[in-house]
Amino acid sequence: MVPSQLNLLLASTSTVHGAPYLSYLESAVRAHFSGCKTVAFVPFARPGGLTWDDYTARPAAVFAEWGLELRGIHTWETPEKAAAEADGFFVGGGNTFVLLDTLQRGGWMTPLDEAVQCGKPYMGSSAGTNLAGRTVGTTNDMPIAHPANLNAFGWVPFNLNPHYLDPDPHSTHKGETREQRIGEFHCYHPQPVLGLREGSWLELHGGLLELKGSLNTRLFQAGLPAAELIPGAIRVGE
Amino acid sequence: MVPSQLNLLLASTSTVHGAPYLSYLESAVRAHFSGCKTVAFVPFARPGGLTWDDYTARPAAVFAEWGLELRGIHTWETPEKAAAEADGFFVGGGNTFVLLDTLQRGGWMTPLDEAVQCGKPYMGSSAGTNLAGRTVGTTNDMPIAHPANLNAFGWVPFNLNPHYLDPDPHSTHKGETREQRIGEFHCYHPQPVLGLREGSWLELHGGLLELKGSLNTRLFQAGLPAAELIPGAIRVGE
Repeated sequence: MVPSQLNLLLASTSTVHGAPYLSYLESAVRAHFSGCKTVAFVPFARPGGLTWDDYTARPAAVFAEWGLELRGIHTWETPEKAAAEADGFFVGGGNTFVLLDTLQRGGWMTPLDEAVQCGKPYMGSSAGTNLAGRTVGTTNDMPIAHPANLNAFGWVPFNLNPHYLDPDPHSTHKGETREQRIGEFHCYHPQPVLGLREGSWLELHGGLLELKGSLNTRLFQAGLPAAELIPGAIRVGE
Repeated sequence: MVPSQLNLLLASTSTVHGAPYLSYLESAVRAHFSGCKTVAFVPFARPGGLTWDDYTARPAAVFAEWGLELRGIHTWETPEKAAAEADGFFVGGGNTFVLLDTLQRGGWMTPLDEAVQCGKPYMGSSAGTNLAGRTVGTTNDMPIAHPANLNAFGWVPFNLNPHYLDPDPHSTHKGETREQRIGEFHCYHPQPVLGLREGSWLELHGGLLELKGSLNTRLFQAGLPAAELIPGAIRVGE
């Protein structure tokens, strides 16, 4: 069951090939955070090892151009104050293990969860999108940190695989394909997995889950052949 | 420091493009396990969700052609008996998290470690190769299981990245390259990482570490530019 008060925007990637950072999402982001005075940015995934301040500066500059104020969530005194005072949340990409470990250790999980469950808009890209699923067990990232557990917020009743890549039919590489890895996930876990290609995003408003962007997304369900979902309203794992 | 009694063969992959399973390693494997009556196979990484018995049957058939007896390690009564009675060990590829979790939960880590430290030959491919390093924190696999910790056996003073892939200069994909992922690992961990390309393997005998196969391997050290090592004797992280 998807609680109807959730407002989610879950992007496969912050950047698509040939376009500036976040630019392909401009109209969706502006609509998502319309009415928000201050959006809190969660920089904990630290792509490339960026500091929290340096990472925050990148999306904050883009948001400022769009008339939105983005502030690093680490600049509030406590997680509880940040969750109460921010009007929305954007969790950027990077390393999912580092992100989850930092959220868990810092006591961020419950305050963020409660604020989003109350309807404050949440946006994730890549690692930030993984957090909205049941677990982060379908991340592509290296385990460079070791969270206490892999449980994510579970706002949607499935797992996500951002930056989903189709198998290259000409590849000579013997490492597992993304589809094989997700198949192995399903040997141990029941929830569906959505493979979100770069340029796709999900939106959830009023209990309606929609696939946005121009691409199809790939749905993996335990024991079933993979399927392609086309943009528009979708139902997964309910 | 690399203890001089270790006998290791650490392969990037069990299979190279266009050749049967394990075939490119035949002479190396025959030499590595010469003098062994029974080699124990560790099938716990379960590629594709194979059962332990079904997975064991694959390398056992190949080893039998080479005059070597390979027996599933799970067929011994206890880890201690297996470690004592087997003359060598081969840990196959699959999912590194499932492999490590199964070894930890089953009480396999200490008996295996002690037997290998005493000089019994160890061979790993892919996930099995990750186990020989300091940690499995540079695996490519999805976290479909959650081991208590990511510590590996640490028989070599570095980490491994099997199936190492060079960046594709023509790629339009925005997910991190392997090199970027290893760079992020080095924001948190000091040990060097060897990126072993498919077709490469390491051998350690009498304290001498050698890169085998025809390809170079890529060495990543925290704070230094990546370097290429050519086949032959190498020194890493000592």
